[in-house]
Amino acid sequence: MIGMGRLEAFSDAVFAIAITILVLELSVPVLNAGESAFTGVLGEWPSYLAYVISFATVGGFWLEHSAITEHMSGTDVSFTRLNLLLLMVVSFVPFPTKLIADWLGDEGNERVAVTFYGLALLAASAMISVLWRYASRHDLVRRDIDDREMRTLSKRMTPSLVLYVVLIVTGLLLPLVAVFGYLALAVFILLPVRKTKTATA
Amino acid sequence: MIGMGRLEAFSDAVFAIAITILVLELSVPVLNAGESAFTGVLGEWPSYLAYVISFATVGGFWLEHSAITEHMSGTDVSFTRLNLLLLMVVSFVPFPTKLIADWLGDEGNERVAVTFYGLALLAASAMISVLWRYASRHDLVRRDIDDREMRTLSKRMTPSLVLYVVLIVTGLLLPLVAVFGYLALAVFILLPVRKTKTATA
Amino acid sequence: MIGMGRLEAFSDAVFAIAITILVLELSVPVLNAGESAFTGVLGEWPSYLAYVISFATVGGFWLEHSAITEHMSGTDVSFTRLNLLLLMVVSFVPFPTKLIADWLGDEGNERVAVTFYGLALLAASAMISVLWRYASRHDLVRRDIDDREMRTLSKRMTPSLVLYVVLIVTGLLLPLVAVFGYLALAVFILLPVRKTKTATA
Amino acid sequence: MIGMGRLEAFSDAVFAIAITILVLELSVPVLNAGESAFTGVLGEWPSYLAYVISFATVGGFWLEHSAITEHMSGTDVSFTRLNLLLLMVVSFVPFPTKLIADWLGDEGNERVAVTFYGLALLAASAMISVLWRYASRHDLVRRDIDDREMRTLSKRMTPSLVLYVVLIVTGLLLPLVAVFGYLALAVFILLPVRKTKTATA
Repeated sequence: MIGMGRLEAFSDAVFAIAITILVLELSVPVLNAGESAFTGVLGEWPSYLAYVISFATVGGFWLEHSAITEHMSGTDVSFTRLNLLLLMVVSFVPFPTKLIADWLGDEGNERVAVTFYGLALLAASAMISVLWRYASRHDLVRRDIDDREMRTLSKRMTPSLVLYVVLIVTGLLLPLVAVFGYLALAVFILLPVRKTKTATA
Repeated sequence: MIGMGRLEAFSDAVFAIAITILVLELSVPVLNAGESAFTGVLGEWPSYLAYVISFATVGGFWLEHSAITEHMSGTDVSFTRLNLLLLMVVSFVPFPTKLIADWLGDEGNERVAVTFYGLALLAASAMISVLWRYASRHDLVRRDIDDREMRTLSKRMTPSLVLYVVLIVTGLLLPLVAVFGYLALAVFILLPVRKTKTATA
Repeated sequence: MIGMGRLEAFSDAVFAIAITILVLELSVPVLNAGESAFTGVLGEWPSYLAYVISFATVGGFWLEHSAITEHMSGTDVSFTRLNLLLLMVVSFVPFPTKLIADWLGDEGNERVAVTFYGLALLAASAMISVLWRYASRHDLVRRDIDDREMRTLSKRMTPSLVLYVVLIVTGLLLPLVAVFGYLALAVFILLPVRKTKTATA
Repeated sequence: MIGMGRLEAFSDAVFAIAITILVLELSVPVLNAGESAFTGVLGEWPSYLAYVISFATVGGFWLEHSAITEHMSGTDVSFTRLNLLLLMVVSFVPFPTKLIADWLGDEGNERVAVTFYGLALLAASAMISVLWRYASRHDLVRRDIDDREMRTLSKRMTPSLVLYVVLIVTGLLLPLVAVFGYLALAVFILLPVRKTKTATA
């Protein structure tokens, strides 16, 4: 097994960059004749919404990734490659975010944007599950982690996969509803499972 | 409690990226017929001003964030989430910076830009206070930090919140004055409170 | 010899940024009159292809770079400079990636884009070989690495150089074939040589 | 004195980002009617030149910064602030780089671009000298560093300041000559002073 240090540092950097360049999607509104700057800035709400959802979602993915690597004692060559595949999907998220920002509210286009967005999040979420499954089946998990703790982490990851599929289907009919679903799901992933303090008390 | 290492590394990366991509807001001036390159470059002064203020402000936030985490012995699940919320606000700052850069000097628009900018800085500043309050009330502070040192840090953070509110109100009437107020406030946050060397002597 | 810590951290950061800003090349498609968003998004396939190839290739370069520095006990002033030269080439890759994304499918232009792209990858690959050769000839390799392990790493790097030359020549005649060749080569570099676990068993 | 860890990590990240986003300045050439892609790509030579010079220069600044912090035992509140000021100037470099890329070869404009560029590099170089002077006068240097080693580092930094002033003046008359001067100076900064291996032999 290879040390985790550099893999974690590299992954953290990619997550941090992907999350921070989301802001580059936001641009100064072009004001129509007679339009006030206030209305112009408010009119960009789909961009702000897309920014918040993607930030919360990628932030949640980062937390799940941290949880996985903290449970591991080391990595192997295959885990390192699978991890690169996850990073490729995570780094891609700013693109469908831009589609949402530009096309939300534009009937006809928004359905395509929302579906594409959902597929990207589903792919990232699936890759995180694959990483965890690979780690637990190939003896990369620390000895001091008991079965109950491992099942908790596994259970934690399954519902998001199902919910992403549900939201993708929803988005085909009701794009805006799906968008708020993605926001709710991001908040759900971010919500702490249990107080660590309680556990150590 | 969870180790601080990865939280600090991730936060540092986000702060560093947010501060460094500020330069992407600056673009080569489009010269009008007969305009010299020199005038064109000078005419971009609102962009340079916005760059300096945002760099100094986010740099100051990073220092405050470092001060907080250096006082802590570990993190818990809630602190980690609150920290992500702070990073979301800090990462957002380049957007209102662009608004200032584009709209300053353009009466009517500049008030909206300056107000929006102030609200973003206020939100970041408030989140830093929340983080520090959370850490001190949930027993995440190192045992060797005494009460006096904690009060110093707390006192240090309160005035910026008040001053941001004052500057937001000022900006509604006198946008340019508020902009220089933000610059002055950033310099104030950056000014060292006390010489560490004196303290250790 | 100088410590490797900061050189590794700096290199990791540059690799991570170069790989993550590849997504900035992707832009929201401008839809022609009557064109559906779905067709518009699908029509950007050269951008997605370029994204995937460059991500996989730079990811593979990062793995090779990690393998080299993990075999080393320290760096010297020349290695540090050669490493900066490698980073200069790696950081450049997003530009020819953009050329591929924009010009693929556009006969006449695509040959130039594909050739330029191949030259950049060849240069990066050659610099990685130079780094490894320099390290092994200037006594920067760890004492506990035996000759067989060093030869394995050396052998691993040679074929890519030859294959990049073959693909550059191919690209002059059949640009699209070369592009899929670059994808295949990236996958080849990424494929694990041997299971580390087997080796330690 | 405060630990150097986070200051180094943050500085490294800012240097790494500033150096890597230089590539964003390069854009796909817009081809005039009848112009071949090959000529179009070649015609962007000022962009490539600007990229190489800025990469080499900022890379050299990073090496000087590393040399300084490696000689130090810790930081204090003022050094940390001065360091932020250096980072502000370094992060700014991509902007005058863009001016060079766009305006070189365009008589009248190029002089402004080259002068602005030189002033930014002079400011960064001066800040590095200030940091080193501050560290050596405020007892932040490691005890095991002898006077000779400190003088070597000091001497190393002075000539670049003088040369930057000379090149700025040169650029007012002969912009293109100054540009190649900046390239030569970057290479000079990057050239290793002495083989570390010889020193330890």
